[in-house]
Amino acid sequence: MADQLQLHSYWRSSAAYRVRIGLNLKGLEYRTVPVHLVRDGGEQHSDEYHALNPQELVPVLQHGERVLRQSLAILEYLDETWPRHPLLPSGSRERARARALAQTVACEIHPLNNLRVLQFFEHTWNVPQPEREDWVRHWIGQGFAALEEMLADHPGTGDYCVGDTPGIADCCLIPQVYNARRFGVDMSAYPTISRVEAACLAHPAFDAARPENQPDAPRP
Amino acid sequence: MADQLQLHSYWRSSAAYRVRIGLNLKGLEYRTVPVHLVRDGGEQHSDEYHALNPQELVPVLQHGERVLRQSLAILEYLDETWPRHPLLPSGSRERARARALAQTVACEIHPLNNLRVLQFFEHTWNVPQPEREDWVRHWIGQGFAALEEMLADHPGTGDYCVGDTPGIADCCLIPQVYNARRFGVDMSAYPTISRVEAACLAHPAFDAARPENQPDAPRP
Repeated sequence: MADQLQLHSYWRSSAAYRVRIGLNLKGLEYRTVPVHLVRDGGEQHSDEYHALNPQELVPVLQHGERVLRQSLAILEYLDETWPRHPLLPSGSRERARARALAQTVACEIHPLNNLRVLQFFEHTWNVPQPEREDWVRHWIGQGFAALEEMLADHPGTGDYCVGDTPGIADCCLIPQVYNARRFGVDMSAYPTISRVEAACLAHPAFDAARPENQPDAPRP
Repeated sequence: MADQLQLHSYWRSSAAYRVRIGLNLKGLEYRTVPVHLVRDGGEQHSDEYHALNPQELVPVLQHGERVLRQSLAILEYLDETWPRHPLLPSGSRERARARALAQTVACEIHPLNNLRVLQFFEHTWNVPQPEREDWVRHWIGQGFAALEEMLADHPGTGDYCVGDTPGIADCCLIPQVYNARRFGVDMSAYPTISRVEAACLAHPAFDAARPENQPDAPRP
């Protein structure tokens, strides 16, 4: 059991959702350790979790004694450790494109919209909820407009973001589309993103990773 | 000349600064194509630049016909294309740590503080300058506190973030420390970060990449 995989996750965290997809694509079994990001001020701020990740963010993946942080670093680690079903393409040019697509979500959209930022607006700046939601839609809109251009008509785009097998860019895109829908973004402006989303959601690895299919999701 | 390297850069952009360090560490010659992010509303919004990068962000690296976007994807591409002076360590565990440190800057600190976000606060929400600067210091403080813990007393930390040669984590950290100093963050709370910074700034690859040493920096 030394090499057991444990994912510290929250059902609605889009960074954890990325890693769940990656683990499922590789067919790796893992145990979910729920970290409730809202209850009691947020379990990610506990001393116990802080020791695991001083950033007090999910996900963390434990692989035996190894403690792995940051979702994109974890996905690269999965790819290096279990090469079956690669999450990155084989050529350096295609790898650069896949990483750039993934980072457009992970460095340009998601950081601006995550929980701690919205909490800062609510509690420190007293920004009303409609403006907070406009903010979220503003950055998703900017990022998705760029992504749509980077995907549409590019010869490297296939059924998925890069070619005809799902990979690291899809691991990032799908959780971001989930957030976009949650905040009422009109997805009709992004036909290529929507097409890739449909392909992904029909894939069992993505389906099993959905927020509502997690053990810590609230029961209806 | 087909394989000439051209970096679309702005002297003060910390994402471009990361790539300049990486290019210099590898001893690669490149031509700087300045993109003034402020003048005339921002040259990154021109049709010409948009065609190069729909995200309208710097940097972009052109390698012959290849157009590479997103600073971390570019650094990985440099490492794969020119293996001399690796920017990533050789073991998968150490690589995961180096990437997590780099992403703590690139996904958790910098996106919240870059120009377009501060412009949004100024022009859309009319946030006064002192509050905007508090915002910048808030996220640098949170991120640096976590980074300091991840670096201090970790056996993997050496003269640099990971071991005794500079790499991808240092490429991200040093531009972020530059921004921290610019906004008056008290660096005495982060002794390990400050020690790594001193080592890096004494290195010619980092020195040549400094904002004030760029061809498009304003002359004093």
